[in-house]
Amino acid sequence: MRDKSVSVKLTDSSHKYTIQIGHNRLKFCGEWAISRLSEKTAKIVIVSNAKIFRLYGSIVQKSFEKAGFEVFVFLMKDGEKHKNLRSLENLLKFISENKLARTDAIVALGGGVVGDLAGFAAAVYLRGIALLQIPTTLLAMIDSSVGGKTGINSDLGKNLIGAFHQPNGVLIDIETLKTLPHRELVAGFCEAIKHGAISNRQLFDKTADFLMNYPPKNFRNYFSDENFLSKLENLLAAQVSFKAEIVMNDERESADRTDAKSRKILNFGHTLGHALEKVTDYEYFKHGEAVGYGILFAAELSKTLEILDENEVRLLNDVFHNLGKLPSVKNIEIEKVVQAFSFDKKNIGQTLQWILLKRIGEPVILSSEEISPKSFQKTLKKFLQT
Amino acid sequence: MRDKSVSVKLTDSSHKYTIQIGHNRLKFCGEWAISRLSEKTAKIVIVSNAKIFRLYGSIVQKSFEKAGFEVFVFLMKDGEKHKNLRSLENLLKFISENKLARTDAIVALGGGVVGDLAGFAAAVYLRGIALLQIPTTLLAMIDSSVGGKTGINSDLGKNLIGAFHQPNGVLIDIETLKTLPHRELVAGFCEAIKHGAISNRQLFDKTADFLMNYPPKNFRNYFSDENFLSKLENLLAAQVSFKAEIVMNDERESADRTDAKSRKILNFGHTLGHALEKVTDYEYFKHGEAVGYGILFAAELSKTLEILDENEVRLLNDVFHNLGKLPSVKNIEIEKVVQAFSFDKKNIGQTLQWILLKRIGEPVILSSEEISPKSFQKTLKKFLQT
Repeated sequence: MRDKSVSVKLTDSSHKYTIQIGHNRLKFCGEWAISRLSEKTAKIVIVSNAKIFRLYGSIVQKSFEKAGFEVFVFLMKDGEKHKNLRSLENLLKFISENKLARTDAIVALGGGVVGDLAGFAAAVYLRGIALLQIPTTLLAMIDSSVGGKTGINSDLGKNLIGAFHQPNGVLIDIETLKTLPHRELVAGFCEAIKHGAISNRQLFDKTADFLMNYPPKNFRNYFSDENFLSKLENLLAAQVSFKAEIVMNDERESADRTDAKSRKILNFGHTLGHALEKVTDYEYFKHGEAVGYGILFAAELSKTLEILDENEVRLLNDVFHNLGKLPSVKNIEIEKVVQAFSFDKKNIGQTLQWILLKRIGEPVILSSEEISPKSFQKTLKKFLQT
Repeated sequence: MRDKSVSVKLTDSSHKYTIQIGHNRLKFCGEWAISRLSEKTAKIVIVSNAKIFRLYGSIVQKSFEKAGFEVFVFLMKDGEKHKNLRSLENLLKFISENKLARTDAIVALGGGVVGDLAGFAAAVYLRGIALLQIPTTLLAMIDSSVGGKTGINSDLGKNLIGAFHQPNGVLIDIETLKTLPHRELVAGFCEAIKHGAISNRQLFDKTADFLMNYPPKNFRNYFSDENFLSKLENLLAAQVSFKAEIVMNDERESADRTDAKSRKILNFGHTLGHALEKVTDYEYFKHGEAVGYGILFAAELSKTLEILDENEVRLLNDVFHNLGKLPSVKNIEIEKVVQAFSFDKKNIGQTLQWILLKRIGEPVILSSEEISPKSFQKTLKKFLQT
């Protein structure tokens, strides 16, 4: 059994690391960690939540201990709302009370929330210590664990406080997806479709084919099929490679870049996505689900503006059809959504940017000033009512 | 009038910036900022304290406004104890309420405390925005504003939480030293002597000569002398160049390096220095003063261990003599100091490292295990009693 692996070499920070993808890997994570960390690493703090730790904690902890690390476990409460300054303080207190040195490491075992909090703590404890990511959700695997974005939410905004802190390694064990709740799985695939739509036809087709062959309903049943495991690993490797490629060349999402390879294009689907999350108080949608709507809307808007062909829009809708239903947007008021945009706009002190499509694999960044308000309102109205 | 300038090119992060040194520069800081920041920078938050801002705030603010920036002023309370999480939260709130964008900037106007807090806020707001340093203390000019270390204190330790965040530019206006309290000046020169002792005989002699010609007593009286201004600018440029050279090649103070060019050597005098600060609750000594004692002790210990010649120790003592008196260490109990070391040791989870001297300009890093406890205790006892 050979793992797939993707190498990430960052041009800005000259940092390198590998993302390893396989199944049945958790029990070997201690050995893997040894190969990723300094010889001097003695202590490890595993950051996780109770639910994930109940499923995978013991196997992971044992493997680290077997590899000779002294292990401490910090469990945070589950959910985006706990990714806040209070949790960060508690975690930093825990790390320093256990006297981790600059050569020690933090391990994030969980989804995006765990990864973001653990990553930010690793970024600021003693001005930065090593971080290993063991993502257990599809979204974290293909998106949030790759690229070094870490951070917390505050009253003032989501991810307003944070840092870029690249991990020393990412270990993806696809077996953990067996226990992932259906909605989380669908949300993760929304980001996978996003990557497909903005990268190239090959990744888009690969993602679409996978979803046609293995629709997320009863996903766990596929895991006895070796062929499925190999297909899923291949898909994840391709997804991660694309994300890594973008991040490598624009590590800090430079504000000036608007080209088709800039990190900004990863925000495809996120402009409406964020607004939908915001007007529903971040409780109704999973982030990926909101992005799913964002993708379909961006495609629709691209069509209205006559930059994207109708057939391409249909292809996108077909993939989402295979994915299954997203929570309805019927009861969301259009005025509130428009208000959420303008808040965002004021908040960043800049014009709102829309990432649209010229075709699948060809994103383009337009400022909202380049889009006629009439076309925009019409598309949004139609979109929220269907 | 031409400024002196020192270029800093960091090998790890591929970041570049310039440190400019001159007099009467504050009124041109707006123009200077334009040359250091992105075209998109519209807003600036000046971080300072009431005392500094009363002296220099209006001239700086006007210059920024004249240059076309929208300026917001955040004044923190003066003193190391306010460099904490609460101040950071308040500052981040202030920055986000004034809706700074990723392309906007923070300006630190003040000493090390202001620079550390402002720098850390710039490091974590929106995962990092631009930072300009305008240091107004000698210590901040030659030490803390150069090298990108930022951070805050917490119950758990000094600078335990922080980040490396390199500035986009540093502007040193030596005129601000005119109003610097005598003890602050002396503390700054202690770090200058430190740089001399660990770099090379040339910088050491330059610093020693300067202090012989211009002892810190009544320092402000020298400022009408053009020759003094030029000598001081030269000294600061040499000091800053040395610090920059070290930082450039070891940006993140790599834990593995123990060579004579590693960033660690900048901790010369800091091992005893930190212990002295700790046992006096960080209230009796200025940081630089404690480091001054640390330097003399490290020299003394180097002599006891027969790695440093007695003449070199005498040279070091002579410079300190010209500098003037440091607060006495007579009432400090040796047991408490030893205890403070061992706390430090446990806290970082490693053996304590001592930076000693083979000669002036030739530091060497020894682990405390390489030093006989008897020689150590004897030297410390003698040192604290004289």
